[in-house]
Amino acid sequence: MSFLTAKSTIESTQIFNIVKKMPKGALLHAHLEATVDAGFLLKSALEHTNVCIRAASTITKETLGSTLPDFAPRPVAGSYESPATITSPNYVPDTYVSAQKVRREWPEILGGPEGFDRWVIQSLTINPSEAYDTHNTTVKIWNKFQSCFTVIRGLLAYEPVLRKFLRQLFESCVEDGISYAEFRWNFTPKDNILTSEDGTCYIDHDRLLSIFQTELELYLQNLRDAGRSDLFHGAKIIYTFVRIISVEELEWYLEDCLALKKKYPQLIAGFDVVGPEDVMHPLIYYLEPLIKFRNKCEALGIDLPFLFHAGETLGDGNSTDQNLYDAILLGTKRIGHAFSLIKHPTLMRLCRERNICCEVCPVSNEILRLTASIPAHPIAAMLNHGVPIALASDDPGIFSNIGLSYDFFQVLVSSEISGLMTLAVLARESFQHAILDEEEKKRALAVWDARWARYIEEVVSTNGIL
Amino acid sequence: MSFLTAKSTIESTQIFNIVKKMPKGALLHAHLEATVDAGFLLKSALEHTNVCIRAASTITKETLGSTLPDFAPRPVAGSYESPATITSPNYVPDTYVSAQKVRREWPEILGGPEGFDRWVIQSLTINPSEAYDTHNTTVKIWNKFQSCFTVIRGLLAYEPVLRKFLRQLFESCVEDGISYAEFRWNFTPKDNILTSEDGTCYIDHDRLLSIFQTELELYLQNLRDAGRSDLFHGAKIIYTFVRIISVEELEWYLEDCLALKKKYPQLIAGFDVVGPEDVMHPLIYYLEPLIKFRNKCEALGIDLPFLFHAGETLGDGNSTDQNLYDAILLGTKRIGHAFSLIKHPTLMRLCRERNICCEVCPVSNEILRLTASIPAHPIAAMLNHGVPIALASDDPGIFSNIGLSYDFFQVLVSSEISGLMTLAVLARESFQHAILDEEEKKRALAVWDARWARYIEEVVSTNGIL
Repeated sequence: MSFLTAKSTIESTQIFNIVKKMPKGALLHAHLEATVDAGFLLKSALEHTNVCIRAASTITKETLGSTLPDFAPRPVAGSYESPATITSPNYVPDTYVSAQKVRREWPEILGGPEGFDRWVIQSLTINPSEAYDTHNTTVKIWNKFQSCFTVIRGLLAYEPVLRKFLRQLFESCVEDGISYAEFRWNFTPKDNILTSEDGTCYIDHDRLLSIFQTELELYLQNLRDAGRSDLFHGAKIIYTFVRIISVEELEWYLEDCLALKKKYPQLIAGFDVVGPEDVMHPLIYYLEPLIKFRNKCEALGIDLPFLFHAGETLGDGNSTDQNLYDAILLGTKRIGHAFSLIKHPTLMRLCRERNICCEVCPVSNEILRLTASIPAHPIAAMLNHGVPIALASDDPGIFSNIGLSYDFFQVLVSSEISGLMTLAVLARESFQHAILDEEEKKRALAVWDARWARYIEEVVSTNGIL
Repeated sequence: MSFLTAKSTIESTQIFNIVKKMPKGALLHAHLEATVDAGFLLKSALEHTNVCIRAASTITKETLGSTLPDFAPRPVAGSYESPATITSPNYVPDTYVSAQKVRREWPEILGGPEGFDRWVIQSLTINPSEAYDTHNTTVKIWNKFQSCFTVIRGLLAYEPVLRKFLRQLFESCVEDGISYAEFRWNFTPKDNILTSEDGTCYIDHDRLLSIFQTELELYLQNLRDAGRSDLFHGAKIIYTFVRIISVEELEWYLEDCLALKKKYPQLIAGFDVVGPEDVMHPLIYYLEPLIKFRNKCEALGIDLPFLFHAGETLGDGNSTDQNLYDAILLGTKRIGHAFSLIKHPTLMRLCRERNICCEVCPVSNEILRLTASIPAHPIAAMLNHGVPIALASDDPGIFSNIGLSYDFFQVLVSSEISGLMTLAVLARESFQHAILDEEEKKRALAVWDARWARYIEEVVSTNGIL
């Protein structure tokens, strides 16, 4: 059974509940914008009168399914209450209306306010029929996937929403047993989207990181105050850009990334290139600036590792598959996905010898049509070949699998060899591959070991010896 | 796109036509009953008045879809013309009626005689909607698959039909560029099905092999007479039984196989166990008699190699996956499918070191739901890991992919690395893994090399340098 279809069945099992409570170590591959429950994100946005919505024409029963909500924060709270709502025949195309008003006046024929919620949630997530029927190729599902990001970015563009989002993100990590995380965050060249609380002021990358740092510190302080600092050690950002830009544009990003790393050395974990590998530029396209950047970092004594996506493909010998070679030649410290790595005996050997960790995302790979089901996923083969692996969730907000429990569960049940101890080894080793210094790793491992011992005791006392 | 959906598109391509004409070497994995076009089989059966059909009740529009045709040859030709036909309200359940009459009187409401043909063909083959929608798990599609075999066996149970079937089989091999074949034939303990031309006499295994030998000799003689003995070198039988019998029953089969090998040393190539590995007995269940058998063969100086199915599964560490270990420990000379082999680095090494060939059946694996599409098939990985491989068709009659061209095509187009030379290496090496003596292999290779040279000249002169 496919993941999204099986989700509610999975959640009802005793095994899932056991996995849910497990301390899972470090989350090393997740795209920040897609890490929080879609319902939470919408609810948070609806608390603010500055959050507005617009459409290219009046939304009717006929156009609803093919129209995406276009969210944006606007200045002067409350003043977007007066225009005709986007479902009104009098709606003036492309004018912003307060999201609160749009929801309140959402017509009965479209399901009333709950119909509005369904419309938005549907645009923020991938449902089973899209994943398995209507969008059943990697290219089609990537289109849907990218449209989700577009809607999310509109919602996240408002500072108060972003702050709530970040708090919820840290909280959901802790709830799922994740004690450390590195989030890939997608940076855009001009910050013409994100706005401050009053909706008037654009926020630059520096401020973005300071918001992240403030919220993280606040969250960690609260944990310390509650005597539960063992639950979460912190989070970092992997600076990413979409692999559609030109080589010239890249220079700007690399300088930006370096400047941020200097200012927030503890926050920036590394550098990566994102977007569909199969249709956008391969790593080799950016080879020259990337090598120059690496040399510059070395000369400056700055440790800013590459953490490249590579091999997220069904192709054999295509440019995405070739990205594996380039990522490793460029000295990547980890590989995002590495789905096609199993086809390369020599690269697997290099991963073993150089301890290059593959960030494997089983649920994501299934929903994005790389594997029809988890038993067909190469992870079992990769594990047997001794490839270093960390399980990751990729875009749990879009896939409706918040946390790491679903990915851990899938790996557990797809094999008659994998047991809780397999998951334990994966969780524990995830710290070894994190961008932490040796002292931090040692501390994180000691805390994890203590938590694991308590967890196993609890599992055994609650469920008996399984 | 999935294989059965894409089939007509595949056939219309220039590449397919190039692959079709290629000399393909040896076909090493095909189940004899499922190697001939279903339409041909039905047409051959309908030429004989002895071929009858029965049903448990009158067939109507309502019961048609859920009822299988139950064919059997009956004695006294013509006397099954008188009973009411199986679609008549007066039909007496379970009585045999001549298939010719049933077809002739097939009512218009069920599509007339062509409706009868469709009904039978549908029972002999797997169509796209079964493969991808209604029977979309390995267990469900195996049920359909086994029901196809049941219907085929009723049709093939009549000696004149079997003879036509064999002639067509050799002919279709030659048409597809296959110059040698080893067919797995399923032996049943009591020969209460196959009947002689007058429909009165049961045929034992000895006679079965003599029929095969006669038809093969006749076919080879015709080729020699036409000066085309380079097209086909011969065919052999791999003795198989279904892995559902008891250990005690197996003793009978092993003795039977040995006796046949003594009488037809050139015809019996080896020994195998068939049927769905995931639901029937694993190899280890038959360990003791198999080891005894191997020792006995050795003591007698008889070369009767094991050619075991193993690893035809999505499972990891289940009994089918474990069959790979047992097959290799039992000294198998080749492995049928070895689909899960990629998960076992050590077993892959043993296959390389001991030159154990994996008979990989890409189309079969896709239709039987082990892989969602050919790019997701482990064959590219297996090739890169240096595992010896021969491409095979498994059950082309049921899958509607007669010959090896479809499997070769799928491998060619699934990778940007594979080219015609990849296929050439696979075709040429197939002889090395065949059960032929060194002299025969040398001859087959010399003939193949000459054919390949002519083929490449023809491809280039017809299509230009590709």
